[in-house]
Amino acid sequence: MMKRVKLIVSYDGTNYCGWQIQPNGITVEEVLNQHLSELLGEPIRVTGASRTDAGVHAMGNVAVFDTSARMPAEKISYALNTRLPQDIRIQESAQVSPDFHPRFCRTVKTYEYRILNRRFPDPCQRLYSLFAYYPLDVEKMREAASYLVGEHDFKSLSTYKAEVDNTVRTIYSLDLIKEGDLIRMRICGNGFLYNMVRIIAGTLLRVGSGYYEPSYMKEILAAKNRQAAGETAPPQGLTLLHIQYPDGEDQPVT
Amino acid sequence: MMKRVKLIVSYDGTNYCGWQIQPNGITVEEVLNQHLSELLGEPIRVTGASRTDAGVHAMGNVAVFDTSARMPAEKISYALNTRLPQDIRIQESAQVSPDFHPRFCRTVKTYEYRILNRRFPDPCQRLYSLFAYYPLDVEKMREAASYLVGEHDFKSLSTYKAEVDNTVRTIYSLDLIKEGDLIRMRICGNGFLYNMVRIIAGTLLRVGSGYYEPSYMKEILAAKNRQAAGETAPPQGLTLLHIQYPDGEDQPVT
Repeated sequence: MMKRVKLIVSYDGTNYCGWQIQPNGITVEEVLNQHLSELLGEPIRVTGASRTDAGVHAMGNVAVFDTSARMPAEKISYALNTRLPQDIRIQESAQVSPDFHPRFCRTVKTYEYRILNRRFPDPCQRLYSLFAYYPLDVEKMREAASYLVGEHDFKSLSTYKAEVDNTVRTIYSLDLIKEGDLIRMRICGNGFLYNMVRIIAGTLLRVGSGYYEPSYMKEILAAKNRQAAGETAPPQGLTLLHIQYPDGEDQPVT
Repeated sequence: MMKRVKLIVSYDGTNYCGWQIQPNGITVEEVLNQHLSELLGEPIRVTGASRTDAGVHAMGNVAVFDTSARMPAEKISYALNTRLPQDIRIQESAQVSPDFHPRFCRTVKTYEYRILNRRFPDPCQRLYSLFAYYPLDVEKMREAASYLVGEHDFKSLSTYKAEVDNTVRTIYSLDLIKEGDLIRMRICGNGFLYNMVRIIAGTLLRVGSGYYEPSYMKEILAAKNRQAAGETAPPQGLTLLHIQYPDGEDQPVT
């Protein structure tokens, strides 16, 4: 009997060309397909909730697949982890409703962008943060961030993709958490446009350094033009923390 | 004119066979010698304060060298960082007294051993922590740790080295800091025997898991026998945080 299985997937994106299968270079999706197919003895193709870019990390990306294998869904996490490379780990596996699709439902996604703000880099954090040696005014970054919370047209803060016609999204929260020399930009929203989190990070960096005034964020939104905003911050600072589904939709079924 | 220069060196130990030059495999000392020699145009040989093992990290190891080059000592950090691989970074460079030796003086060293205590590993922390899936009782670990603070013979908690005849050392503090699923064991002392921090970590893990009672730590010390203690915890969890020199001895001179 066929069943649908949901995986919570974490990975260190350093050595992957992102999530989605592509001709040049190894991807997380491809590695999951390969090891799941070997484990379950039938061809498996996962569908991911978030197709993260090359170098971006995840603690809680979500993938689903259908299988007729008899292995109980909740055991798959343990069995798969013994086969996967150390930079990918399944945090949970569970059977879900055959209707559940990780992308086509209303979700709340939480991302974190890490900025290491000190005189010289910390080698042990180089793969998981953006390094900035210039002083950053976190209070100014917080003010600028406050203008982004709520429902807005984020056209200025995303990279154009022809297939996306609606660039209105809602940000529920955008917090800047300072822990010593580390600044965690944590952003929570109902969906993010292409490169949106990294462009917000790059733009807040310009505010923190004093290049933009905080209130300029309002003009950036109003411009509806990518040229108005800051750079796309590099991928290694970004981690997809978790994806929350509407009550019940991703709950285990038995 | 010759001058002595002190470097504060941080590195990600993942890809190094430790600090000290050896025939098989690349070491931090060797990479520093090579790039300093190229930068300053004369053969440079550094002396390190702590010869960390393969896979161990450092935020603040200390190295000194003598040079007749005219580059001001405090500029060397900037110039050297542009040449070094990304997993080694100089945090500071300064001219010090010609008498200053990084090893032969009374220092206070602080190490941190990180334990990630959760159901499944976090891929982004795999290179910088020990992963433990079994529940750890941090309160019991704290009690056991308390017996180690002070002056003791740490023979049971170190790997035998023929050239060391005095195994008495002083631990000033040994704290277990819990941050979510991360446990930081931070230890501060006047010198550490070979593998001592990693054996203490491995022994505290046995206490945390319930295999040893906290008070058994007193018997371990009394036994003066390596067999009495727990395993040597793996190197990737260990970071040398900093080395404090007696007032003045490592201070910049002009």
